[in-house]
Amino acid sequence: MPTLVLLRHGQSQWNLENRFTGWWDVDLTERGVAEAEAAGRALKAAGHDFDCAFTSVLTRAIKTLHRALEAMDRLWLPVTKDWRFNERHYGGLTGLDKAETAARHGEDQVRLWRRAYDVAPPPLAPGSPYDVSDDRRYTGVPVPATESLKDTIARVVPALEAGVLPALRRGGRVLVVAHGNSLRGLVKHLSGLSAEEIVAFEIPTGVPLVYTLDDRLQPLSRHFLS
Amino acid sequence: MPTLVLLRHGQSQWNLENRFTGWWDVDLTERGVAEAEAAGRALKAAGHDFDCAFTSVLTRAIKTLHRALEAMDRLWLPVTKDWRFNERHYGGLTGLDKAETAARHGEDQVRLWRRAYDVAPPPLAPGSPYDVSDDRRYTGVPVPATESLKDTIARVVPALEAGVLPALRRGGRVLVVAHGNSLRGLVKHLSGLSAEEIVAFEIPTGVPLVYTLDDRLQPLSRHFLS
Repeated sequence: MPTLVLLRHGQSQWNLENRFTGWWDVDLTERGVAEAEAAGRALKAAGHDFDCAFTSVLTRAIKTLHRALEAMDRLWLPVTKDWRFNERHYGGLTGLDKAETAARHGEDQVRLWRRAYDVAPPPLAPGSPYDVSDDRRYTGVPVPATESLKDTIARVVPALEAGVLPALRRGGRVLVVAHGNSLRGLVKHLSGLSAEEIVAFEIPTGVPLVYTLDDRLQPLSRHFLS
Repeated sequence: MPTLVLLRHGQSQWNLENRFTGWWDVDLTERGVAEAEAAGRALKAAGHDFDCAFTSVLTRAIKTLHRALEAMDRLWLPVTKDWRFNERHYGGLTGLDKAETAARHGEDQVRLWRRAYDVAPPPLAPGSPYDVSDDRRYTGVPVPATESLKDTIARVVPALEAGVLPALRRGGRVLVVAHGNSLRGLVKHLSGLSAEEIVAFEIPTGVPLVYTLDDRLQPLSRHFLS
């Protein structure tokens, strides 16, 4: 039976500092590493196993995947790293903490950027220290200057269709380690949630979300492994 | 200019215990992890960078690669894991320490198995706890029961030709993290060493071996980065 497990990376340094991260490549905290290892142990204890794994090109997701695979004795599994699983690009909010953002833009505006489906923050300012468009890992990639959740989902779904769904169609058991908003894209697509529903759908860090699917890849069940 | 860096995994638990390991999947020691991180830092400090990486399907090599890439801020590089980069299969010697092997087979015989190019140890006994032929990672793989160094090199070279050389031909900078004897295969092939020369060629754990190559992939230089 095809199984898909979605795992949001463990706590990062900027999760801890409550700053908008997006495509900025921050590391996991020690707690984040521990969350990754705990997720791997929990998956193994629940009898889950995998045939392949997918992740983003951001350190916090890749490292979470590696530590989880290590806890499952599955470091040898093939891993595909795809920028399309990256976190939502937060544009001009990147690097700001909650207080700075509220002071600069007002609470209501921040809530709108966080909670609306198709509203993007202002683009990253030219010359921003958080501009990653020249990073070698994005050679040939249309690096966005900002994204709404809708924009993020629009580039996540083709990655799902290119790699994840074919593996599931072969009956595979697939692990995807990514980010809060890129995983929302997978959930919206698989579970057929509305824009309102997916905005309200929260995925905690380090807690595996397990889908079992039928042969046509329709979800039979979905639950958090805790 | 195409560059190929070969790195032998850091100290494993059985390196420490002086036991024949081969395809048995032992973990790195803490010192081994530190060696991997130091190798990554040394490569970065020397100005090396990479476009892709290759490793075996054994934890000690994969983990060495991951820790080295992390030290270089290059976890996002594409990684190919190929069983053909595995260590030489030591057959019936697997799991034995130096003293046990000498007591059972005699010093001269052990020296021959270690030092001859085309002499394989006795095959792994049926029912051995070190038999990995049913391990899922080897589905479809002709798992050997024992190997001479010549046998190991015979399956390493096709992996070199399938993945590493094409990447180098594109002008790529390639990192291969593997094992003492599988790396000997790469060195023998690239440097055109004789059987006697490659048997005598020692690759220390955690010390990168740097090849610079011309456009026809002939070695221009080869040195250990220390």
